[in-house]
Amino acid sequence: MEEGQVFKGDIIFTPTPQGFETLQGGYIVVLNGKVEGIYKKLPPLFSRLRVNDFGRRLILPGFVDLHVHSSQFYQSGVGLDQNLIPWLYSHTFPLEGRFADPEFAREAYSRFVEELIRQGTLRACIFATVHKESTKILFNILAARGLGAFVGKVNMDRHCPHYLQEATEVSLQETEELVIRYGGHPLVKPIVTPRFAPTSSAKLLDGLGSLVQRYNLPVQSHLAENKQEVEWVKELFPSQATYADVYLHYGLLGQTPALMAHAVHLEERELVLIENNAVRLVHCPEANINLASGIMPVRELLDRGIHLGLGSDIGAGHNLALYRVMVRAIQISKLRSFYEPQAKPLTTAEVFYMGTKGGGSFFGKVGSFEQGYSFDAIVVEDEPLITAGFSLEERLQRFLYTGEAVNIIERFVEGKRIRCEPGN
Amino acid sequence: MEEGQVFKGDIIFTPTPQGFETLQGGYIVVLNGKVEGIYKKLPPLFSRLRVNDFGRRLILPGFVDLHVHSSQFYQSGVGLDQNLIPWLYSHTFPLEGRFADPEFAREAYSRFVEELIRQGTLRACIFATVHKESTKILFNILAARGLGAFVGKVNMDRHCPHYLQEATEVSLQETEELVIRYGGHPLVKPIVTPRFAPTSSAKLLDGLGSLVQRYNLPVQSHLAENKQEVEWVKELFPSQATYADVYLHYGLLGQTPALMAHAVHLEERELVLIENNAVRLVHCPEANINLASGIMPVRELLDRGIHLGLGSDIGAGHNLALYRVMVRAIQISKLRSFYEPQAKPLTTAEVFYMGTKGGGSFFGKVGSFEQGYSFDAIVVEDEPLITAGFSLEERLQRFLYTGEAVNIIERFVEGKRIRCEPGN
Repeated sequence: MEEGQVFKGDIIFTPTPQGFETLQGGYIVVLNGKVEGIYKKLPPLFSRLRVNDFGRRLILPGFVDLHVHSSQFYQSGVGLDQNLIPWLYSHTFPLEGRFADPEFAREAYSRFVEELIRQGTLRACIFATVHKESTKILFNILAARGLGAFVGKVNMDRHCPHYLQEATEVSLQETEELVIRYGGHPLVKPIVTPRFAPTSSAKLLDGLGSLVQRYNLPVQSHLAENKQEVEWVKELFPSQATYADVYLHYGLLGQTPALMAHAVHLEERELVLIENNAVRLVHCPEANINLASGIMPVRELLDRGIHLGLGSDIGAGHNLALYRVMVRAIQISKLRSFYEPQAKPLTTAEVFYMGTKGGGSFFGKVGSFEQGYSFDAIVVEDEPLITAGFSLEERLQRFLYTGEAVNIIERFVEGKRIRCEPGN
Repeated sequence: MEEGQVFKGDIIFTPTPQGFETLQGGYIVVLNGKVEGIYKKLPPLFSRLRVNDFGRRLILPGFVDLHVHSSQFYQSGVGLDQNLIPWLYSHTFPLEGRFADPEFAREAYSRFVEELIRQGTLRACIFATVHKESTKILFNILAARGLGAFVGKVNMDRHCPHYLQEATEVSLQETEELVIRYGGHPLVKPIVTPRFAPTSSAKLLDGLGSLVQRYNLPVQSHLAENKQEVEWVKELFPSQATYADVYLHYGLLGQTPALMAHAVHLEERELVLIENNAVRLVHCPEANINLASGIMPVRELLDRGIHLGLGSDIGAGHNLALYRVMVRAIQISKLRSFYEPQAKPLTTAEVFYMGTKGGGSFFGKVGSFEQGYSFDAIVVEDEPLITAGFSLEERLQRFLYTGEAVNIIERFVEGKRIRCEPGN
């Protein structure tokens, strides 16, 4: 028999980026973890199901973070007076080196995952480090806590400190080992993760492309974050026309579903490659500002129909809270519009879509409350005294701008409740 | 006899905007609420004083918010898809209208003041509303809680909804009444507060200028926040050359110390007026982004030697937490530098200075731990496990970017402890 339950509250979500769908005091019927329907009045057919009544609290889709470095959680907010490449060497690489120690990794990854849960991020695409054992620990913690995730052991065989540099063959072999071990998990899955072109030899990229094809794996990496980086890639791969061409050449640019983070400085040719392949770009506004990388031309990308999600990009970004990342995406789009008036600022609905259904589509039917979608949801308690006269949209906006993790009082993935551990 | 005490911990502050002064495990000796000195080892002379030992916690100057609308606290984060003038009419004026009811004001102002304390803002220059009784309530709450503040009853006799519009004579008379009543308070003082030029008749500005001169009062208002507003002022005051000239003409532009918030769109003539008068400009980065007003040319203003502080500008800004406002000031200066490379991004030390000593100088010797300064301080608890290898500067940076109110565990104004009320 089907397992069913009902969730009652003030429902708000974005079926499209054009606007919110809201229902005050509505019922979401969930069967086997999927949304069966939303009702103003509960149909008699479902009257025997248990009702989780959240009163006038907000029920929202859980957040989806398409780009986050779990190993950089401890350095959030530090060293942000630098640009990408110096910052990697002064802060990021030394911290990543510590994940050679599984005990350090266990502590750091546990804290990271508890903070994801606390902040209502229920699905994430995650960079680990080059270390296989630590990456296994991350897989296991995520699986035990019931989150949905793609997890990548990072591949890196050149242009990095010796303590992080892998032998190419070892890098490929360990990646394959993790793919075989975790490929069948229903919620936590492997993803191929070359850090970025500069830290990858041609041989490594070629080997990863073969793995991707053999096991039909998704891919995540960085693309055109910073101008120096773009120049560096052109020097390193002179036979490729552009940065995106490097990934394309090795079968890593959307021949299977791929996530490319940043994409701030793309040429027209690269945009066409992205349009013609299964690439989703990840907007990481906080990181792009903090490392002074540039502003992604989000409005133009949306107009072209390119698929976009949001990433916290911890630790270049300092907010794991995706509701803060949404606000920052709006804010930098406003700043951009001072200088480029044709680029209209992003709306609240557009950024909410990117951080829920837009990103969620990488996981299947995730990030919305339409029929057939996974019931991934958070419940938000706001202050009735203050918000009594507000519309649902205004209450959501207030939460995105001023809410804190403590306002998130419940979390569900595929209808299953995830408890937030106290003290985290 | 002098009352003395000692504060021990990891001390960090900015005597100048050029950099931090830090002392790990240092002692601050405080006599009669003022800093006597900072010591690596406690001199025997002070060995009988009580030591407040905060171990490896950070001791920082309390934050100073030079521009905040206490009445707009409930609307923080709402309606921010609009520009200044429409936003005033759709959200701000209706909310301010509710402060005609003293009971509403008591509840709202209490929550606002508790949140100031929770966020470590220990001095603030505050706009109330046009309502005299409610403004008295705000004065009394601030005084009872021990904060330092300048509080202004707003003056507004035209171009606003009827329910907020004052008769010019009543506005002047009530302002004078409050000046007389609160002028002698040591910590909470009156400040003359015409909302901005467009909502003030010439007669009102003239009367306020006379009050300023008669009682030697400070002034706060808005200046050149938004381009439409600047145009409107030129239409309304055709005989004045610029927006700043309007205030100058009526004795409100730094003939006594004055705060002018925003100053995003100033002409050269106005900058010269500001340089030649006791005007301090208030940078409100969050508000300027949220209402898409523009970016203040902070780097150029600093280079000219113009005095600057920071403002949360609640509710156009959505962060009462001044450490968040500091981060946003850095972030938008980075964004500006993409388009105007000559404008170097602000440093962490520069924005910290603006939010402590820079703003604090409006209150006298406030915002630093140099000798003779008021001991206004907060104590910050960060996570030893994570920050063990960090410098004091890195720990401060991490707090500014990722800390929360809960990390602030103690607050002192002039050496006197202010308890944070639980549940607020």
